[in-house]
Amino acid sequence: MIFKRLIAIVAAAAALWSCGGAGNRVQTIEGETITSPDGHLKLVFALAQDGTPMYSLDKDSLKVVLPSKLGFALFDNGGDLQTGFTVKEVTRDSFDEVWEPVWGEEAQIRNHYNELLVALGREDGTAMNLRFRLYDDGLGFRYEFPVENKLTYFSVKEELTEFAMTGDHTAWWIPGDYDTQEYNYTESRLSEVRGKYEGMRIHNASAEGFSPTGVQTALQLKTDDGLYLNIHEAEVVDYPTTNLELDDKNFVFRTWLTPDAEGVKGRLQAPCKTPWRTVMVVEKAVDVLASRLILNLNEPCAIEDVSWIHPVKYMGVWWEMITGKSAWSYTDDYPSVQLGVTDYSKAKPHGRHGANNENVRRHIDFAAENGFDAILVEGWNEGWEDWYGHKKDFVFDFQTPYPDFDIAALNEYAHSKGIRLVMHHETSSSTLNYERFIEPAYDLMNKYGYNSVKSGYVGDIIPYGEHHYSQPLINHYLLCIKKAAEHHIMVNAHEAVRPTGLCRTWPNLIGNEAAMGTEYRAGIHAGHATVLPFTRLQGGPMDYTPGIFEMDMSRIVPTEHGKMQMTIANQLGIYVTFYSPLQMAADFPEHYQRFMDAFQFIKDVAVDWDKSVYLDAEPGAYIVTARHPKLASLNKAQESVATLKDGKKNAVSGAAKYVYALPENATTADLARAKARDVWYVGGVNDENAREVLVAFDFLKPGVNYEADIYLDGDDADYEIAPQSYKIEKRTLTSADSLTVRMARGGGFAISLRELL
Amino acid sequence: MIFKRLIAIVAAAAALWSCGGAGNRVQTIEGETITSPDGHLKLVFALAQDGTPMYSLDKDSLKVVLPSKLGFALFDNGGDLQTGFTVKEVTRDSFDEVWEPVWGEEAQIRNHYNELLVALGREDGTAMNLRFRLYDDGLGFRYEFPVENKLTYFSVKEELTEFAMTGDHTAWWIPGDYDTQEYNYTESRLSEVRGKYEGMRIHNASAEGFSPTGVQTALQLKTDDGLYLNIHEAEVVDYPTTNLELDDKNFVFRTWLTPDAEGVKGRLQAPCKTPWRTVMVVEKAVDVLASRLILNLNEPCAIEDVSWIHPVKYMGVWWEMITGKSAWSYTDDYPSVQLGVTDYSKAKPHGRHGANNENVRRHIDFAAENGFDAILVEGWNEGWEDWYGHKKDFVFDFQTPYPDFDIAALNEYAHSKGIRLVMHHETSSSTLNYERFIEPAYDLMNKYGYNSVKSGYVGDIIPYGEHHYSQPLINHYLLCIKKAAEHHIMVNAHEAVRPTGLCRTWPNLIGNEAAMGTEYRAGIHAGHATVLPFTRLQGGPMDYTPGIFEMDMSRIVPTEHGKMQMTIANQLGIYVTFYSPLQMAADFPEHYQRFMDAFQFIKDVAVDWDKSVYLDAEPGAYIVTARHPKLASLNKAQESVATLKDGKKNAVSGAAKYVYALPENATTADLARAKARDVWYVGGVNDENAREVLVAFDFLKPGVNYEADIYLDGDDADYEIAPQSYKIEKRTLTSADSLTVRMARGGGFAISLRELL
Repeated sequence: MIFKRLIAIVAAAAALWSCGGAGNRVQTIEGETITSPDGHLKLVFALAQDGTPMYSLDKDSLKVVLPSKLGFALFDNGGDLQTGFTVKEVTRDSFDEVWEPVWGEEAQIRNHYNELLVALGREDGTAMNLRFRLYDDGLGFRYEFPVENKLTYFSVKEELTEFAMTGDHTAWWIPGDYDTQEYNYTESRLSEVRGKYEGMRIHNASAEGFSPTGVQTALQLKTDDGLYLNIHEAEVVDYPTTNLELDDKNFVFRTWLTPDAEGVKGRLQAPCKTPWRTVMVVEKAVDVLASRLILNLNEPCAIEDVSWIHPVKYMGVWWEMITGKSAWSYTDDYPSVQLGVTDYSKAKPHGRHGANNENVRRHIDFAAENGFDAILVEGWNEGWEDWYGHKKDFVFDFQTPYPDFDIAALNEYAHSKGIRLVMHHETSSSTLNYERFIEPAYDLMNKYGYNSVKSGYVGDIIPYGEHHYSQPLINHYLLCIKKAAEHHIMVNAHEAVRPTGLCRTWPNLIGNEAAMGTEYRAGIHAGHATVLPFTRLQGGPMDYTPGIFEMDMSRIVPTEHGKMQMTIANQLGIYVTFYSPLQMAADFPEHYQRFMDAFQFIKDVAVDWDKSVYLDAEPGAYIVTARHPKLASLNKAQESVATLKDGKKNAVSGAAKYVYALPENATTADLARAKARDVWYVGGVNDENAREVLVAFDFLKPGVNYEADIYLDGDDADYEIAPQSYKIEKRTLTSADSLTVRMARGGGFAISLRELL
Repeated sequence: MIFKRLIAIVAAAAALWSCGGAGNRVQTIEGETITSPDGHLKLVFALAQDGTPMYSLDKDSLKVVLPSKLGFALFDNGGDLQTGFTVKEVTRDSFDEVWEPVWGEEAQIRNHYNELLVALGREDGTAMNLRFRLYDDGLGFRYEFPVENKLTYFSVKEELTEFAMTGDHTAWWIPGDYDTQEYNYTESRLSEVRGKYEGMRIHNASAEGFSPTGVQTALQLKTDDGLYLNIHEAEVVDYPTTNLELDDKNFVFRTWLTPDAEGVKGRLQAPCKTPWRTVMVVEKAVDVLASRLILNLNEPCAIEDVSWIHPVKYMGVWWEMITGKSAWSYTDDYPSVQLGVTDYSKAKPHGRHGANNENVRRHIDFAAENGFDAILVEGWNEGWEDWYGHKKDFVFDFQTPYPDFDIAALNEYAHSKGIRLVMHHETSSSTLNYERFIEPAYDLMNKYGYNSVKSGYVGDIIPYGEHHYSQPLINHYLLCIKKAAEHHIMVNAHEAVRPTGLCRTWPNLIGNEAAMGTEYRAGIHAGHATVLPFTRLQGGPMDYTPGIFEMDMSRIVPTEHGKMQMTIANQLGIYVTFYSPLQMAADFPEHYQRFMDAFQFIKDVAVDWDKSVYLDAEPGAYIVTARHPKLASLNKAQESVATLKDGKKNAVSGAAKYVYALPENATTADLARAKARDVWYVGGVNDENAREVLVAFDFLKPGVNYEADIYLDGDDADYEIAPQSYKIEKRTLTSADSLTVRMARGGGFAISLRELL
């Protein structure tokens, strides 16, 4: 349909917001509209008089996004890719399907939206389309550049997408950055961002010249009308990641892309499209957690055979390096090392190397005994003596073990116990080097039976001048995921870009870090875990590495003084609160051995779900979640591990053990009934204020008795005073029951529920 | 030996040079000295009063390099790595050996020098050594950073190495650049460089912010005392390439390194060393051509089995693209292409694609008939439609042929005729992408029997912000050479960095471009070929692609108007004047068919030598060279080609045919004698002024008659008026003979000499 009507813009007479801001912004536009399937959200698209595309978003009678400009500044084509457009064609569509993720928070996801596609053009032949998809819980839109276009190759100076807020909302934010998301969150009004900014900012290379009000996505907002908004992006492919620049007079966000080494913020070749820009709009905090907006905006799974992809619960030779108990490196003999030149076989070991045969075997034994799938071993390969901070190009070859790490024997030993080793590829951010070695490195993994890799991107990027979130790096991360898929390898990338739902398309991306995780120890604020599910986890799972039972770092290394700001029950609660198909029990075996009754929950909890119920939540305060395991997935994962070695079945995963648990005199009929029985897990996490939450169990099957193992903060539990105080209660519960649960300061809770046979 | 004497500096009272310059520069230093083996050159090392290392170089009573500073400015370690040094130890050594290059201008090379190693240190533990090697024909010196050092990782802001000239020398120079050496040479006094600079400079990205007096190495100089100096560098490995910044008041050159994307001019990790800085000092121009200074300063061959490396004389499907007669690309269907997405099998061919089956077969036939070894085919692979100028990362996959290039059938056809195809890898300077595909690309070559690759680096470098001569790219080129060696592949890299003798260490680097070559057609000044052997060729052979017989471009493509500035005899002369183990006959078969008698020289000439005699030369004017072929090498190469297919011997190379030529009724004894007979080739090239040169044949075996085929400029030959005028004379010559040869404007000559049986 050719669209020829003039779209008028009605400038509202006065500003709607009560505080801050110049009141001369246009308040309403009239033009093309679509509504969400449930009719509550309304998207309006219009052209300003100068031909600038604009959009606005309402929820019922509430304005959500005021008329906001769209477009680009370019380095070429005259620079202006914002004004002078006319509408060439408008197309509407709607879509409704249910799809099944390979792994996830639920077995089925509904993807239901109405779509508006506006084809824009200029007389000179420049063409730019805008595609809007309106869901019940929010908006996604992207720019598309068709092939019939004056634009073929062009470079973005700035993407000018605005998100004009209606007022001085409350935000949970971290400062903008081109290289890291490893920040604590700040809760403040938008007008307070500038004032709180400097204290938050990490002064790294990418901070220079950056905005003093820029924040990162996913940005969680709450309006004074009680709406929860969440601004993010979906499907960031071949395009830089964006920050959000805040005009804190008018409360208008604008995209602020990550520049590459030449300052270019996107090199495009038509036909192409940008990532989706998303605005979630829901009435309850738990609906943010339940939203699948980001996943739905990504493409369907691109991997045909996904049989090799499965959730993983793992332990690792890792926390001991993080805490300073042991080291990644092998020797102190050299001021620096040169791979292929330095002869480690002649080096004197410094005696603190964590990834040694004996220590790895000890971890394998403990993991196997306790139903884990895998052991991560960091520091196994040559080069750790000077891996950090030198912008060293050839820093690792990802293939050569230290003399005390017998890669063949250790894998064989692990497999004999039903355990896989998790490969570790720290790139030291020399992606140039990693790409040179990625094929032989993955070949090595295949050779020894590794099926997952934790990759790391610590430090400044090589190629020099690039950033962790610039377009060439976005392409690098995806290249690794694709190559890994060819090798049937699952990827858990740390310090890479925050995820934007790509795990739907590439489900072998089973984890990312991309936020401040447990490794920050005492540096993490008590409420951190109550924000991440609203922000970082919107794009995909996080390898948060929870499960710390010893919070006092000085008990590990006497010269350390930090104390982590959470309780043991909080750590248990995270396994349910944070969805991830990859969950670590991060602490030492010897720490778990001191608290085996609490550790039982980590052994029992599942890592893949067919149903999730978000019971209660408020960002930055608390979250309570219930989840129902996907047993088929659990069993498949278990089988993959159990048949590693000579077809022998060895370990049985903890969660499977929990589900199938039977008395010794059980009959075959009992086992069949056990396999069919209902199981739920509930978890809660809390901020730094003690509070009570009411947990109603109405999600359970009615009329069925469940045996519940309830892991609670002890009566004196407190992250500062008594972080290791917990209590465990056993009860029988039904769907008619509810419990008032007290969470300590920095506390939490966890519950396993199993249908009584 | 511990050196504790105070080294004093004697400041000379007055400047020695007669024109230009502030006269306050120190003229003499006293300190540690070494002399060249023949005693004529003297190197003095001393510390200035502030602890700055300095050196000077004399030849007998003539000063060559006035006291010149050494050192660095760093980004770290306090910045200053020039002052405050004391001498910790001085070591002297001498060396004399004869080594045999895998290929070259002579079978044996003498490496004979005296060495001075000065260990410098500071109280803070900073250590820097200077190693000087003094040859009869010049000086090489480098910085070395030992492992016992305060410096471990450090970044160079500027290398401060000076070369203080004694006066306003005549120079043959091209402007400094970070990305290209493709310039005509300018002959001028040093004081005139600034004035002539702007006209010369290519205003590309790397020109911005660069010095208005910077020039490139190898820089050929001539003093008013009649000395020929040549400033260059040797063994540039893991370090940026340098330009020479000229202080044109004082005639002092200083190193000006190529910055990387972050502006760093070298990232070093001790232990390490810089490239050699070299100053050749000889009394005759021909001695510059005879010098092996650069090769001698490189490391011995690093490849154990060199049996697969051999010289190559080749033709190609190439000049037709350069002249515009045909195209690298296949279709005009798309404004841009996407590899793996664009379906070429459905594209409409534009009909101008050069690398099509029929055309390649035609070239194979002609090459086989005329005794060549190989055919280069450019434009064989998908992606040429938009390969240039878009900074496109994924521009080629180096593996997927266009629909009309049957890679299996064409290689099979070529091999059946004793011809190899030469692979072509244009990277479009996206080295990031090339490194991703280099292994499968080389595997593909191995699969189809390619044993050499011409690689290309046209356009701006990706990684963004890097330069063709910055350290990461230097490392890239070497990475390719090493990987190629693993695959038994010979490399001919175009638009890569100018060579600095690395072919001694990696003799599979059989060619480089790195200068303005024949592809510039009418843009090349007439005297260009008389400068390159003094400059560009000092570092290693050049794939200059001579052999053009049709100089009028309009006869190929009527809309072209350029006329190349040389004669046919000049083109023949280049085959002897320019040493290269890789020589192309660049023109079309149909052009050679018009001049088969002149083409005979190209067929007959060898490409590898056991002896070279530089008869007469003056840079920028003329060069006359005689060379004696290394027949063993020729035969080996021939064998490698001839046994390609089913062990059948097919083509016999032109040079071998020439050597073995016998009458039809020859006996076996005749053949044996033929194999032993003496053969020489002589070539001359001239500038834009017609001149006569006297060629004395005293290099021939005395008392032996040689039949000589003499290819001369025709009487009316002139590059502007009659470039295709030539005459061929046959004579019998002995070592007692000499010939006065007239070379036309832009002309030259060539002679084949074969012992009469």
